[in-house]
Amino acid sequence: MSTSFDLMICNADIATASDRFKCDIGIRHGKIAALGLELGEAAETIDASGLLVLPGGIDAHCHLDQPMPHGLRMADDFASGTRSAACGGTTTVIPFAAQTKGGSLQAAVDDYHNRAAGKAAIDYAFHLIVTDPTPEVLQNELPRLIQEGYTSFKIYMTYDDLKLNDHEILKVLDVARTHDALVMIHAENSDCITWLTERLASQGHTAPKFHAISRPMAVEREATHRAITFSELAGVPILIVHVSGREAIEQIRWAHGRGLRIYAETCPQYLFLTEQDLDADGYQGAKCICSPPPRDKQNQEAVWNGLAHNVFSIFSSDHAAFRYDDPQGKKFKGKEQAFQYIPNGIPGLETRLPLLFSGGVMTGRIDIHQFVALTATNPAKMYGLYPRKGSIMVGADADIALWDTKRRVVIDNGILHHNVDYTPYQGMEVQGWPILTLSRGKVVSREFSFLGNSGAGEFLPCAKPMV
Amino acid sequence: MSTSFDLMICNADIATASDRFKCDIGIRHGKIAALGLELGEAAETIDASGLLVLPGGIDAHCHLDQPMPHGLRMADDFASGTRSAACGGTTTVIPFAAQTKGGSLQAAVDDYHNRAAGKAAIDYAFHLIVTDPTPEVLQNELPRLIQEGYTSFKIYMTYDDLKLNDHEILKVLDVARTHDALVMIHAENSDCITWLTERLASQGHTAPKFHAISRPMAVEREATHRAITFSELAGVPILIVHVSGREAIEQIRWAHGRGLRIYAETCPQYLFLTEQDLDADGYQGAKCICSPPPRDKQNQEAVWNGLAHNVFSIFSSDHAAFRYDDPQGKKFKGKEQAFQYIPNGIPGLETRLPLLFSGGVMTGRIDIHQFVALTATNPAKMYGLYPRKGSIMVGADADIALWDTKRRVVIDNGILHHNVDYTPYQGMEVQGWPILTLSRGKVVSREFSFLGNSGAGEFLPCAKPMV
Amino acid sequence: MSTSFDLMICNADIATASDRFKCDIGIRHGKIAALGLELGEAAETIDASGLLVLPGGIDAHCHLDQPMPHGLRMADDFASGTRSAACGGTTTVIPFAAQTKGGSLQAAVDDYHNRAAGKAAIDYAFHLIVTDPTPEVLQNELPRLIQEGYTSFKIYMTYDDLKLNDHEILKVLDVARTHDALVMIHAENSDCITWLTERLASQGHTAPKFHAISRPMAVEREATHRAITFSELAGVPILIVHVSGREAIEQIRWAHGRGLRIYAETCPQYLFLTEQDLDADGYQGAKCICSPPPRDKQNQEAVWNGLAHNVFSIFSSDHAAFRYDDPQGKKFKGKEQAFQYIPNGIPGLETRLPLLFSGGVMTGRIDIHQFVALTATNPAKMYGLYPRKGSIMVGADADIALWDTKRRVVIDNGILHHNVDYTPYQGMEVQGWPILTLSRGKVVSREFSFLGNSGAGEFLPCAKPMV
Amino acid sequence: MSTSFDLMICNADIATASDRFKCDIGIRHGKIAALGLELGEAAETIDASGLLVLPGGIDAHCHLDQPMPHGLRMADDFASGTRSAACGGTTTVIPFAAQTKGGSLQAAVDDYHNRAAGKAAIDYAFHLIVTDPTPEVLQNELPRLIQEGYTSFKIYMTYDDLKLNDHEILKVLDVARTHDALVMIHAENSDCITWLTERLASQGHTAPKFHAISRPMAVEREATHRAITFSELAGVPILIVHVSGREAIEQIRWAHGRGLRIYAETCPQYLFLTEQDLDADGYQGAKCICSPPPRDKQNQEAVWNGLAHNVFSIFSSDHAAFRYDDPQGKKFKGKEQAFQYIPNGIPGLETRLPLLFSGGVMTGRIDIHQFVALTATNPAKMYGLYPRKGSIMVGADADIALWDTKRRVVIDNGILHHNVDYTPYQGMEVQGWPILTLSRGKVVSREFSFLGNSGAGEFLPCAKPMV
Repeated sequence: MSTSFDLMICNADIATASDRFKCDIGIRHGKIAALGLELGEAAETIDASGLLVLPGGIDAHCHLDQPMPHGLRMADDFASGTRSAACGGTTTVIPFAAQTKGGSLQAAVDDYHNRAAGKAAIDYAFHLIVTDPTPEVLQNELPRLIQEGYTSFKIYMTYDDLKLNDHEILKVLDVARTHDALVMIHAENSDCITWLTERLASQGHTAPKFHAISRPMAVEREATHRAITFSELAGVPILIVHVSGREAIEQIRWAHGRGLRIYAETCPQYLFLTEQDLDADGYQGAKCICSPPPRDKQNQEAVWNGLAHNVFSIFSSDHAAFRYDDPQGKKFKGKEQAFQYIPNGIPGLETRLPLLFSGGVMTGRIDIHQFVALTATNPAKMYGLYPRKGSIMVGADADIALWDTKRRVVIDNGILHHNVDYTPYQGMEVQGWPILTLSRGKVVSREFSFLGNSGAGEFLPCAKPMV
Repeated sequence: MSTSFDLMICNADIATASDRFKCDIGIRHGKIAALGLELGEAAETIDASGLLVLPGGIDAHCHLDQPMPHGLRMADDFASGTRSAACGGTTTVIPFAAQTKGGSLQAAVDDYHNRAAGKAAIDYAFHLIVTDPTPEVLQNELPRLIQEGYTSFKIYMTYDDLKLNDHEILKVLDVARTHDALVMIHAENSDCITWLTERLASQGHTAPKFHAISRPMAVEREATHRAITFSELAGVPILIVHVSGREAIEQIRWAHGRGLRIYAETCPQYLFLTEQDLDADGYQGAKCICSPPPRDKQNQEAVWNGLAHNVFSIFSSDHAAFRYDDPQGKKFKGKEQAFQYIPNGIPGLETRLPLLFSGGVMTGRIDIHQFVALTATNPAKMYGLYPRKGSIMVGADADIALWDTKRRVVIDNGILHHNVDYTPYQGMEVQGWPILTLSRGKVVSREFSFLGNSGAGEFLPCAKPMV
Repeated sequence: MSTSFDLMICNADIATASDRFKCDIGIRHGKIAALGLELGEAAETIDASGLLVLPGGIDAHCHLDQPMPHGLRMADDFASGTRSAACGGTTTVIPFAAQTKGGSLQAAVDDYHNRAAGKAAIDYAFHLIVTDPTPEVLQNELPRLIQEGYTSFKIYMTYDDLKLNDHEILKVLDVARTHDALVMIHAENSDCITWLTERLASQGHTAPKFHAISRPMAVEREATHRAITFSELAGVPILIVHVSGREAIEQIRWAHGRGLRIYAETCPQYLFLTEQDLDADGYQGAKCICSPPPRDKQNQEAVWNGLAHNVFSIFSSDHAAFRYDDPQGKKFKGKEQAFQYIPNGIPGLETRLPLLFSGGVMTGRIDIHQFVALTATNPAKMYGLYPRKGSIMVGADADIALWDTKRRVVIDNGILHHNVDYTPYQGMEVQGWPILTLSRGKVVSREFSFLGNSGAGEFLPCAKPMV
Repeated sequence: MSTSFDLMICNADIATASDRFKCDIGIRHGKIAALGLELGEAAETIDASGLLVLPGGIDAHCHLDQPMPHGLRMADDFASGTRSAACGGTTTVIPFAAQTKGGSLQAAVDDYHNRAAGKAAIDYAFHLIVTDPTPEVLQNELPRLIQEGYTSFKIYMTYDDLKLNDHEILKVLDVARTHDALVMIHAENSDCITWLTERLASQGHTAPKFHAISRPMAVEREATHRAITFSELAGVPILIVHVSGREAIEQIRWAHGRGLRIYAETCPQYLFLTEQDLDADGYQGAKCICSPPPRDKQNQEAVWNGLAHNVFSIFSSDHAAFRYDDPQGKKFKGKEQAFQYIPNGIPGLETRLPLLFSGGVMTGRIDIHQFVALTATNPAKMYGLYPRKGSIMVGADADIALWDTKRRVVIDNGILHHNVDYTPYQGMEVQGWPILTLSRGKVVSREFSFLGNSGAGEFLPCAKPMV
């Protein structure tokens, strides 16, 4: 072989979404050029002996520097967010460019590119959030943006400033069907939440724990059933994001049994937190407020079972971080505010992979291939980033994480790299950590230290979803 | 790179159970040594341009030269069976060493090795069939044979000379749990079939079509539910073989929803044949008699949906071939015999992969990765042949099939290489055919011609199932 | 016995919702005073030998003289409607006093009393229709009206001029829970229908048959699931009206399995009509347009099975009659109008009981007790008319129908007594007909002739629902 | 009215399976002759003011003086059993005439008549138990006995001396279909129980509590599914007796959804006992050993829900009483015996109705009509005793119980009339008790005292089941 490599990862024990094999990885121009033994010379060498070599993670559901109403501010921008992701073994993020009601999608995309450029340390793509599906948006903007590489959009069935009504949802799904895009749906019944919240308010219930009571499983199950119906009527696949428990899972299984292409995502908070965490001392429960809320142990088991049996295709963080002790964050209306005014969302970019690896792979609940599929290969395929991203194979970007599967780590906010003053997983011990991460062949993190560069990340236009 | 390769497959468009990439495949000593571009020199080269390169298939459920009672004789021995398999893109077969009641498993294994040795053109492993689980078998023979590489065994809930009662099944499952083996279950309720057959006989119904009526879906569904219960009680995974339709699939989905590890297999006959095929002119319906019987179009759709949604892990042929016009085959009691005396089983080794590829991948019902998983990677893992077999990756045996995905072929028994005088799929047109097959780096078939050697196949001891 | 009776029905073969017995029925002051043999003298005698004696039917879902928008007019007022009902064996009707948006419920009730008074030939109660649940309505009017005997109200999830949103529905349910009323829900997803209708319109599909396509089963199933969720959240029973087929039934069964008190009603159109009837020659299909639309034969079977297995509590007509050849009826926008402008509703007051009797009791699909329960006893209990109405027992009103179970009748609009120019059941032959009907001891119909008096019917204030 | 009555129950507040009304009950010749007010004179009068008047109960599943193997002896014969039943408001019992393997059914019937005659204080019919369905039994005995009034038979899927295999069950069902009989099925998988018991034994687990572990819900669920399959294949209704919990109920609901006529019975032990009761101090748990075993609180709720939603048609005691401190009873192998040798069965004839009334009707879980249907009307219909038994209506036997619904009673074995030295319900307080019971117009119990006569009970030949 005449050519040499820029970098050789030697003695790699590689796992993909289906396979496991040992060899060297030859990297050239930021891409994987060869897999094999005795591949030849390289300018640089990393010895992976004793480590598990996985594709870098794709966090396909995270919110970074997303403009917020009312003076709220997200804790992480593209700099801190991608830094944190990189240190957690993630090499691609897909945050959201959110249309404002009355505004154009293009304006949201332009603004979001400005927020990302020069800051992202790893590669990124954008989902769109459609909040105002005017004829102009449906007939012109969306088709054009899909063409330009924004092939997935999220819609909300709740939140007053975001939600679409059923008629609007169907129209958006129809665009997705016609132009080969994938719609992600936040499925909770808005009116039910409003009514339950009003009832709790009238009873004087304001503590963070009532957040969970205001959004019970039935509210998510109903919206899940309704979203499935929309998919059935419109004849287009959908993805239900952040599924939290058994009853929603049952609806999805039921849809699968009927042959419908309903995809689903879940997140660490539904495996490692419960509604009890919203009832922490004082106002601390606010740290775990997100929607849907964490449920209980039995629902956690149902989610694990859904992961094991391929009900879920994607495992994301839904990172939407607000600082806790901050009037622009969890305390933006002062400490005594009622639960319904607490900003929704928790941090999770950096802990997503270690939590699933430790709680899933190390316990045998899922195998290593499911781990890779859920965290990298499937999101790459479903969001049009494959084959450039999502696996370790010839021709792909050299986005690679080396895992020390024996390393025991107690999660502490001090070791994390986000710009948040807490982690909901404080004090949990995990086994397995990505101790070296490469983005396009460059080391971006090593041993809990960020070694990358803000601005090194590239925007990834997305191809047609493989669904 | 200093070393050269024995063979280089150039310009390969490779699909694995999760990935798709283009590169050259360097083969050395019958194994895949490297994947990449510009890998160096090779003694020999195959240009795969325009072809799809897949792992050779594993047919994990086929009956070859299995001793039969009453003077019946299977049409294919290891020579004709593996020849036919190789020409259909299959590079590994796992037939059955069947214990006779009163006999030992070791005797069955010894006998079966004699039948295979010097005849098999491709590699092979053995499942055991346990028909007489004596204390000796349960406590000594099975544990020892598992240790020696026979890690899967099949049991029957029907057929008088094969079936175990519920108590025996539980004892066999317990051995599997203790010694890490996988039990395959033929799930049909024997007594129900007997009773229905007696009733049909008393009504004078003898034609082949009554075979299907004597084994309705409910009979399979019931045994499936019962087998799931055994798995639940014994705390060990099982594999339900040759699942034929909706009601059995519903039971399996229900088990998955409860977190049980129930694996399932289906076969071409449940996708491409119906009970109508048993009602062909004259006695011709006998050609399609197998158990469970083919169902109807709606059940075919249910099976396709199960494939699409990962209800099934394995797609096998259940090749159990008897010549049609033969007193040792389908006519062994003469043409006027009643359906219940017709030997069960149909040929399918060579048509398995093209049928699924054409009907599944080319139509979009499943994707190419599901195809590879169902036909190669999953059986390799579940039956302990992985990573030697089942994928295209560094270190694996170079068992590779090159598919021409544009080739249209009308299935005719004349182009097949089994020793059977018919194919149930006569006249069906498929698109896509494996036009070159390699076993450990050696060409064994090309363009409908067998180019391998009887006896070149090696016995594969099986490791612990990955379930 | 010293007292004598006003009327004695002799030799009665009586069926109630649970029992069957033979005896004489002594009637005094319009009430059943005794059941037995040798009861004594009576002023008048009816010999019921050879006839089946049932409680008079209660049609708990019918629209009479309901004010309509846009110049539409219902075919039947209280005079013709109750006349027709009486001739079909029905002795109580419960039509709807419908609030107009912006109007008060009291105004609707007052208006409706005016429409009924002096016209009704049999007794009647009112359901309310709540279309505008203002705080005044929820806090004052509804509680007061419930107190005054209007203990059930219907709400709509579809129809622009009637529908409530999810939040409003929850508020209405909460009133029902607090004040012991029963809410009836028309469950179809409005936005889905709108979207499908727009799509059909854009494709130029205007014929009556497209009505069914614009409201597929999934649309009803979704709303049924949602309504069940509301009931679960609000902690109050509901009644799903006019359930049309399998998928909605499955939702109701699922709710029952979870212990929820979800009651359900079905109607003749879902047992005896199909969507094919909407595709009759020319514009004739308009005659069978109602919502939900009739489905297909398999859904009919599902509804029959639901009746047999007590999924349904009530069987009503949903009589909402418009004349066919009438610009104030089915042709109100001219013959060429598109399906979405055709007034919804079909006649059925008089044929309801004979159809169910013939198709259900005579075929063995349901037994005579289920017939009585579905058509008389259950509606009486659920709508607070029991024990005055709904059974043949001491103390109840002598509302009694004598059925000739051998009589074969070909349904023809000419033998019916409504003010409609067609019946959807034209030409169907039934076996069994109520040949004599008594309302409070007075004969109101005999042998297809109306013998009652307009104005003889009394208003029935309703007690708390027995649910 | 010229005739007078033997007995008049005045001011009765009567509930039937569907109706509730107040009147006097005129009784003549042991039958109900009239219901009404001012009915005339009577020789004797009972004032029922303030009491609830119900049909006497039918205990359709109880074992009295049934011959037992191995020197075991049931505690109650027809004298003590019917005495106890009468004091608990029950006026008809249907125990079992059990065939011995190798013996004839006729012999069992003859023997059983001898055991009943001259002892029974209330009326009785017989179910048959078929343990040996020889051709003679199937073709001759069963058809003849059905003709003679033995129209229901029970079969077992477990217990070595009783169980039938699947083939035998199908043959028995076929006889039931052909000759209009009803088959009751004890559904537990025998082999599973054997295997689990062996495993427990090998682990040294002998205490009574392991009885429940040896027969988990899955074992009952499996047999229930299998029995449903038999019913489906044979095309005949069946009755699943003593259903104990959720998973079996789900199977039955599933069958109902498919339109199958599967009837079900449950018993007090599945509402008021749990497996914890088998873990009482010392050997006391043996007092609650029955099969299927009591489950847990959640399964109790599932059974209550099944009662509320008409999954169950019949509520029986399954009285099979053995004295506790007795070598012919619960201690027949000495105190240290293992659980599998403890005779199965518990007493319950006298407590059946008060327990269901208190726990069901008084709490609102079921209504009074469901109570009557479950305990009297349905068993009368399903076992061919209707209209003579099962309701309060003209022409029926005057089998009537007067209930004091305000009476609070703490259950104590001292107040019961069976011949057992314990009750599993010792110490439970109930509200409501039948304080006066009439059998064919004669008082048989009053205020916890037996006032009837051994031998006054008559044998009731059964007509065709109304199923």
